[in-house]
Amino acid sequence: MSDWVEHRMVEEGLLALQTTPRSDLGEVVDYVLSTPGKRTRPLILIFSAEAFGSPPQKSLNAALAVELAHAASLVHDDILDGGVERRGAPTTVERFGLEAALLCGDYLISRSIDLISHYPGEVIRNFAHACMEMSAGEMLDLSRISSPKEYFQCVSSKTASLFAASARMGCMIAKAGDEQASIYHEYGLHLGLAYQIVDDLEEVLGTNQGKRSLKASSTLPRIHGERGSLEEAVDICTSSICEHVVAARDALARGSGSEEMRDRLDLILNKMTGGWSEKCVLQRSLC
Amino acid sequence: MSDWVEHRMVEEGLLALQTTPRSDLGEVVDYVLSTPGKRTRPLILIFSAEAFGSPPQKSLNAALAVELAHAASLVHDDILDGGVERRGAPTTVERFGLEAALLCGDYLISRSIDLISHYPGEVIRNFAHACMEMSAGEMLDLSRISSPKEYFQCVSSKTASLFAASARMGCMIAKAGDEQASIYHEYGLHLGLAYQIVDDLEEVLGTNQGKRSLKASSTLPRIHGERGSLEEAVDICTSSICEHVVAARDALARGSGSEEMRDRLDLILNKMTGGWSEKCVLQRSLC
Repeated sequence: MSDWVEHRMVEEGLLALQTTPRSDLGEVVDYVLSTPGKRTRPLILIFSAEAFGSPPQKSLNAALAVELAHAASLVHDDILDGGVERRGAPTTVERFGLEAALLCGDYLISRSIDLISHYPGEVIRNFAHACMEMSAGEMLDLSRISSPKEYFQCVSSKTASLFAASARMGCMIAKAGDEQASIYHEYGLHLGLAYQIVDDLEEVLGTNQGKRSLKASSTLPRIHGERGSLEEAVDICTSSICEHVVAARDALARGSGSEEMRDRLDLILNKMTGGWSEKCVLQRSLC
Repeated sequence: MSDWVEHRMVEEGLLALQTTPRSDLGEVVDYVLSTPGKRTRPLILIFSAEAFGSPPQKSLNAALAVELAHAASLVHDDILDGGVERRGAPTTVERFGLEAALLCGDYLISRSIDLISHYPGEVIRNFAHACMEMSAGEMLDLSRISSPKEYFQCVSSKTASLFAASARMGCMIAKAGDEQASIYHEYGLHLGLAYQIVDDLEEVLGTNQGKRSLKASSTLPRIHGERGSLEEAVDICTSSICEHVVAARDALARGSGSEEMRDRLDLILNKMTGGWSEKCVLQRSLC
């Protein structure tokens, strides 16, 4: 994914945002912005726009806004979860303390408003609604999740909403029309759900490297693990991952827009769901 | 101030925002939105727009966005300051805990993006920059303020920036032109500075009712109090309040736009600076 010129554009865009005047807050913000990342959400936005003929330069600011909103949510989530390590490096709250992390998150959201201001009102509203959903989903996560239904309600808001909004915003920027925007939204939503289950599953299996938190939330594999064996929980989660990978892929197949870009979105789906999506292909061919 | 029809419009607008679906986060958000307030910032925005012929309905969403950004900053600030009581009621963090308060603040900022999305890009950018400044100013407040210069740098960002942006945004919405927008901005800036010094002074004098925090920041009266007597500190602060009240009033006098609205903005200035602004008139007449 880092071979794509769009990936480099996002990295350079984030780097350019670092030119905050030297200050205490600037140091914290720069730490967050220079943390390496897959940049999945901004790439989904840019590719969705490119699929309908909009050059990456035109959607870059929206893509950066989405990445900042994501970064802000990670910084704040680590405060709530007691996150110690992320991608193998100390989290912002671990390194700079609660106060700096809280204000850094606020700054990043505010900066994202500046970036998204260059787009039509309906794009901005889609962005705003995804941000609102993320807070609501995070709140659900902290309260009480005891059933798969509650889990999916939570992760739809907490995780999938921003992926879905990214794909939709890309379409809107390219004026792809409501129908295509909805189809791409579906792709983002199912990708987000599949990705979150993979993430939660790998945490339970201990294969989630470079991430460490003090608190554990109630996740799909944990809910099923409490009801039966770990093996059964893994099976159920794998099926669920497959279901959402297939749904995301079906959305891409139904969507119009350039095939090259849809192939890239499919590649992102594969990368985000790791080896699990290959099991899906296998499982599906056995059906 | 609560007699104005615009005040009622703001209250009703905030009430209408409470129609969030019943949820854990909704309860916290509703608690914040139903907390009574003077609604100074939204009124400044609406009156600045009305001064140039823009009806209040047109600027209401921007006014609500500004009030939500303010509310979000109070909720987060109370986390940082150990705020226990505000306007005589328990703060959000005191009543609902850190997690809920943090996410509630995030939600309110996100909701403000939705509200501001209805305005031109340059209005949105002014809003964004004020929000960015507020975080940066709050960070300064938490670090080390040991001189009047640092104090003014901090409160210009932390407090005055949103007042200044409110006045400017009102002008921009009414298409009042750059010169008037800058003059009204000045009014808001000096009002914000005067107000913050009043607030800090009343805290030291113990006349700041209904507000209680566990931590105390380094304020202008405290800085001067450490250098001399309390009486001297009060004198210096009073002079400084007067200076900024006079500057705000001068801006209003230089500005164009309806006299009725400028009178209202002057009334807000008086209310915000309490009895202190009368001392200014007295002091000035003695010069």
